[in-house]
Amino acid sequence: MTINIKNFLNDKTTLSKMGEFQSLKQIEGLEMSSISADLYSDGRDDLALFYFSKGANYATLTTSNSITSEFIPWNNNSHKKIIKGLLVNTKNANTFTGKQGKESIDILAKNLSRVLTLKESKNKKGTSETIKIKDLIFASTGVIGEEFPVDKIRERLPELVERLRKEHNKMYWIKLASAIMTTDTKPKLAYEEIIIGDELVKICGIAKGSGMIAPNLATMLSFIFTNADINSNLLKTLLKRAVANSFNAITVDSDQSTNDMVSIFSTRSIKIGQNISLNDKAVQKFEIALKKLCLNLAKQVIVDGEGAKKFVTINVINAKSLGSAKNIAFSIANSPLVKTAIAGQDPNWGRIAMGIGKSGEIVDQKKLKIRIGNFIVAENGKISETYDEKKLKEYMEWGSIEIEINLKLGNDAFKCYTCDFTHDYIDINADYRN
Amino acid sequence: MTINIKNFLNDKTTLSKMGEFQSLKQIEGLEMSSISADLYSDGRDDLALFYFSKGANYATLTTSNSITSEFIPWNNNSHKKIIKGLLVNTKNANTFTGKQGKESIDILAKNLSRVLTLKESKNKKGTSETIKIKDLIFASTGVIGEEFPVDKIRERLPELVERLRKEHNKMYWIKLASAIMTTDTKPKLAYEEIIIGDELVKICGIAKGSGMIAPNLATMLSFIFTNADINSNLLKTLLKRAVANSFNAITVDSDQSTNDMVSIFSTRSIKIGQNISLNDKAVQKFEIALKKLCLNLAKQVIVDGEGAKKFVTINVINAKSLGSAKNIAFSIANSPLVKTAIAGQDPNWGRIAMGIGKSGEIVDQKKLKIRIGNFIVAENGKISETYDEKKLKEYMEWGSIEIEINLKLGNDAFKCYTCDFTHDYIDINADYRN
Repeated sequence: MTINIKNFLNDKTTLSKMGEFQSLKQIEGLEMSSISADLYSDGRDDLALFYFSKGANYATLTTSNSITSEFIPWNNNSHKKIIKGLLVNTKNANTFTGKQGKESIDILAKNLSRVLTLKESKNKKGTSETIKIKDLIFASTGVIGEEFPVDKIRERLPELVERLRKEHNKMYWIKLASAIMTTDTKPKLAYEEIIIGDELVKICGIAKGSGMIAPNLATMLSFIFTNADINSNLLKTLLKRAVANSFNAITVDSDQSTNDMVSIFSTRSIKIGQNISLNDKAVQKFEIALKKLCLNLAKQVIVDGEGAKKFVTINVINAKSLGSAKNIAFSIANSPLVKTAIAGQDPNWGRIAMGIGKSGEIVDQKKLKIRIGNFIVAENGKISETYDEKKLKEYMEWGSIEIEINLKLGNDAFKCYTCDFTHDYIDINADYRN
Repeated sequence: MTINIKNFLNDKTTLSKMGEFQSLKQIEGLEMSSISADLYSDGRDDLALFYFSKGANYATLTTSNSITSEFIPWNNNSHKKIIKGLLVNTKNANTFTGKQGKESIDILAKNLSRVLTLKESKNKKGTSETIKIKDLIFASTGVIGEEFPVDKIRERLPELVERLRKEHNKMYWIKLASAIMTTDTKPKLAYEEIIIGDELVKICGIAKGSGMIAPNLATMLSFIFTNADINSNLLKTLLKRAVANSFNAITVDSDQSTNDMVSIFSTRSIKIGQNISLNDKAVQKFEIALKKLCLNLAKQVIVDGEGAKKFVTINVINAKSLGSAKNIAFSIANSPLVKTAIAGQDPNWGRIAMGIGKSGEIVDQKKLKIRIGNFIVAENGKISETYDEKKLKEYMEWGSIEIEINLKLGNDAFKCYTCDFTHDYIDINADYRN
């Protein structure tokens, strides 16, 4: 695997890979465009704009890292009710950029609102709706601590707005998802649709993330769009619940970004009920679809984890609490010794036992049952009597490995997802800035 | 660097490396021996015995992993006041070995006490002091979850006891320190001596540890011996204080062993005072020497960290509490992204900022000052105005890298030690059991 930070669309194999992706559809009320501001000096797209011509309800969840991108407080401080536009840049995180970083956002917001207002006034010939600075939000990803390339980005805003398109097929979604990548080797996209009444409710999601992926928003960006009319408060609740077992259940390297952000936007094109709440059948249907979409995107991030060759599921069951199950799952998933053993296709379950213990959670070694795939490797306080190293080694050659920890202490469970730790992770990260 | 689990003494280059080690001396009242029980199937020494002919006061600190070697509860459960012998085996951790593991210790203890009693009765011709099972302690290190090779070890006990030697020069100490290694590429030894009154007080220490090294006893074994007569309670206090800023201040991979153990033994040969306490000058002198010795051993563990090419010091200063300084230091030291950047000789200080933030500790980005070596890389919330990438890249080529985080929030500080994350770590650990 090589690092491919070039625009995915320029890759000759893209067309042959098209079948890997779901067919994302057009969302009424959403216009999108991407462009190169030459931040990577190789012509790849590095700016993406999402414009909601009639405004969008929205909810957003951000990193819990105490050092954040300048964009995060900026977004939080301006009290937006309805969002008109989202601008995403890659290559530069706008983190630890001080005054220059903060002022850059003011410059971009001012320019973007002006260019968008101009577009509106042209389209509507006279009604000239003003796009205000507070109608905009921003996201960024990339290197921390380098001066923010505000001029390069600002200069491209007119053409970026010019390029906005209402029609977007699968290929166009792939283009947008590619424009937000950093070390990702492929774009991440997911789609769900449900019928509510006679209406087709669509949910389109894109994500980026490959390294600095840990729970609590998994060091990534993800943007989800739906045509269903759901108010911002309800969107927030639904997003939180969906993220808990998807983006908050994955880890590549235990490192956590300063720029994590997951947002959902509703263009309000399709009514799914009056005064809807969590108890409504329509909302429940939507929630199931949203959870599926988030888990799909989260798993794509892990599959594309830096250097990852194997997808690993850690399932902790019968724990005395959810917190305990979660601690144990992540203690194993973040262990470099477990992850290198998996890379080496070695069923070294002793390291899994070490990972359980180092979580600090009290376990009963005699009750504990550890499975790798369908094979019980340890029970009754020792190696399983049916332990078969040969069969296990064969299983470890698979691309997807499942580890189950049965604590037999209670009824709570948590499943998390990770990848193995390979030479490529080190190659990618020893050399990231060059 | 290759994995050298062969007996260090068989290495042709050992003699040429002798100069690297301090000259450890004989401790009166201590006899030592090592032997091969062929646990590695290559003839290297894998058993070490330490025998205190007149008994020893002792103190021991063990792993906080909730899954432990069977030896740990066994040692704790038998209430020893005076220790006569310590047996250490390598290759097998005796962890997750169930009934077989527990019974193995009973078998070894019974046999060792018998053979040692026999030796005593031969030596003293008639006085025949009995070495009781409760006079013995055990330590082990190696693979978790494999059946404990009790028979192989038991069979070698008579010859191991036969080989006990009162005289031990530098070379003999190296032999013993080599017998407790696993993936270590070299033995770890340290020596301090002080004069108290007219007496020469000696402290000899050996350690092993290379992977599964994290704070809270740093996944390792270390055994320290002194001729100074210090009671067990005072030894415990001194050991705890020395470990806090040495073995508890190092991390290779954030993983924590099930077998960690640091012990100190006093053969009581030299009186350093009556009813001595922490306030005595002699004890203070001893404490300074013990701290120096522990830090020396801890640093040797890091230098020999699995795959390590660089020694890294993370110094967090002016924190609002010791806990906060410690959290931030280890958050950086355990970050795979920071460690791979160091391996790549890349002064990617943005990842250091990320590591500070992901600790969860509140920091003031505007006050924060980050130094790499003597170079300020970030201050006043942004990259330093004196930042010089070329000079920093040159500095990153050094074998020892210092990172200083000045939080400017209080008066507490913590220094921790780690190494970089290289391809060799993955090679060693993907293939550990083969």
